[in-house]
Amino acid sequence: MTADSLEQLRTRLAQFAADRDWDQFHSPKNLAMALIAEAAELVEHFQWLTEEQSRALAPQVHREVAMELADILIYLVRTADKVGVDLIAAAGEKIEINEQRYPVDKVRGKAKRASEYDR
Amino acid sequence: MTADSLEQLRTRLAQFAADRDWDQFHSPKNLAMALIAEAAELVEHFQWLTEEQSRALAPQVHREVAMELADILIYLVRTADKVGVDLIAAAGEKIEINEQRYPVDKVRGKAKRASEYDR
Amino acid sequence: MTADSLEQLRTRLAQFAADRDWDQFHSPKNLAMALIAEAAELVEHFQWLTEEQSRALAPQVHREVAMELADILIYLVRTADKVGVDLIAAAGEKIEINEQRYPVDKVRGKAKRASEYDR
Amino acid sequence: MTADSLEQLRTRLAQFAADRDWDQFHSPKNLAMALIAEAAELVEHFQWLTEEQSRALAPQVHREVAMELADILIYLVRTADKVGVDLIAAAGEKIEINEQRYPVDKVRGKAKRASEYDR
Repeated sequence: MTADSLEQLRTRLAQFAADRDWDQFHSPKNLAMALIAEAAELVEHFQWLTEEQSRALAPQVHREVAMELADILIYLVRTADKVGVDLIAAAGEKIEINEQRYPVDKVRGKAKRASEYDR
Repeated sequence: MTADSLEQLRTRLAQFAADRDWDQFHSPKNLAMALIAEAAELVEHFQWLTEEQSRALAPQVHREVAMELADILIYLVRTADKVGVDLIAAAGEKIEINEQRYPVDKVRGKAKRASEYDR
Repeated sequence: MTADSLEQLRTRLAQFAADRDWDQFHSPKNLAMALIAEAAELVEHFQWLTEEQSRALAPQVHREVAMELADILIYLVRTADKVGVDLIAAAGEKIEINEQRYPVDKVRGKAKRASEYDR
Repeated sequence: MTADSLEQLRTRLAQFAADRDWDQFHSPKNLAMALIAEAAELVEHFQWLTEEQSRALAPQVHREVAMELADILIYLVRTADKVGVDLIAAAGEKIEINEQRYPVDKVRGKAKRASEYDR
């Protein structure tokens, strides 16, 4: 019996899909497509904004962005559930990899893609 | 003092960025780009698989998919943090909207885009 | 017998797939996934660059960006072919729609998403 | 004076942007975002369809898909123009690379990501 928010979300979304008999459509392949479509709706909000403007959203846009972020989380949790991945454990593991890959003294203040640090 | 996994992740990622002086690059605009790039790496794993195959991944692919899901979560949490959105609250709100939009008796067993139900 | 570059590309890509017996994998669904994955590789090149920097790419990056643009065109032409769409005719039609939607005197110097002009 | 369809499209889109004073917004960074957002609208049409269904679209969906493909081409041509890339030349070059990377006798009837052929 967990009170963890992400685990509660996973259970609720599984119930939502079961109630609608939607598991048949929720293959990881299809869910990955839905996930990237939601990510693109987020991108759309920012495409004509400067970086500066994206840091200070008008209330209406902020609200819409919050709903896009929610959609992404929903499909992310759903995909992880169907693939059988513990999101929090995976993220913890990935952060450790990133700590090795981007040591503070090597990358401080520099933004590059990982592949570029060794050029 | 929370033990919630998502809140712990948010704090840890904020520290990771601060240590590297990366907040200057982490505008919501840039983070949304990074997020969709990670979502695409997930999509890439599934693009030539059948839905059936995507439901039963080989161990090596499963592992890689887990790391892609982790990357998506990392950028999602980071974007939400910089925009000032509570992901769990937003998801809860969005699920309630979806419950209205997709009533069980209307959509059971049917997969359509929201805009198509009223056609 | 056409000399049009896009039509020649369509024919060459159809042959490329036929030679490899790849039509079985080239459903529009799968091709759309491959297309967005390539679009994301383009995005990746720009995610940590300022807009200014993206306007003046280093030769090595310019070369890589050219190859990403090529990949996108390849999958776009391939998708259109499999769906049975004449890309040039469709683009011509879409531009006419855009000319109606974005009349010069209304949108001059303003970048908004279409849905925002009527707010 | 060329009659090539893609070159004509490039010129027409440059004029469209110039008329609206939109070049200021059309940095390669922003255009890449717009491009992937359009690619996602294509993906959305296919996300709940089987591959089989995606091969036989209803007329209304076919029409919408054609317009999405047009949008992708429009932003692709525009991005290439602003970056200074000859799309057709780049695609030709990329196909030659692919012919080396995917020799017929090695890949016939097999769909894998390039990185997987050597596993």
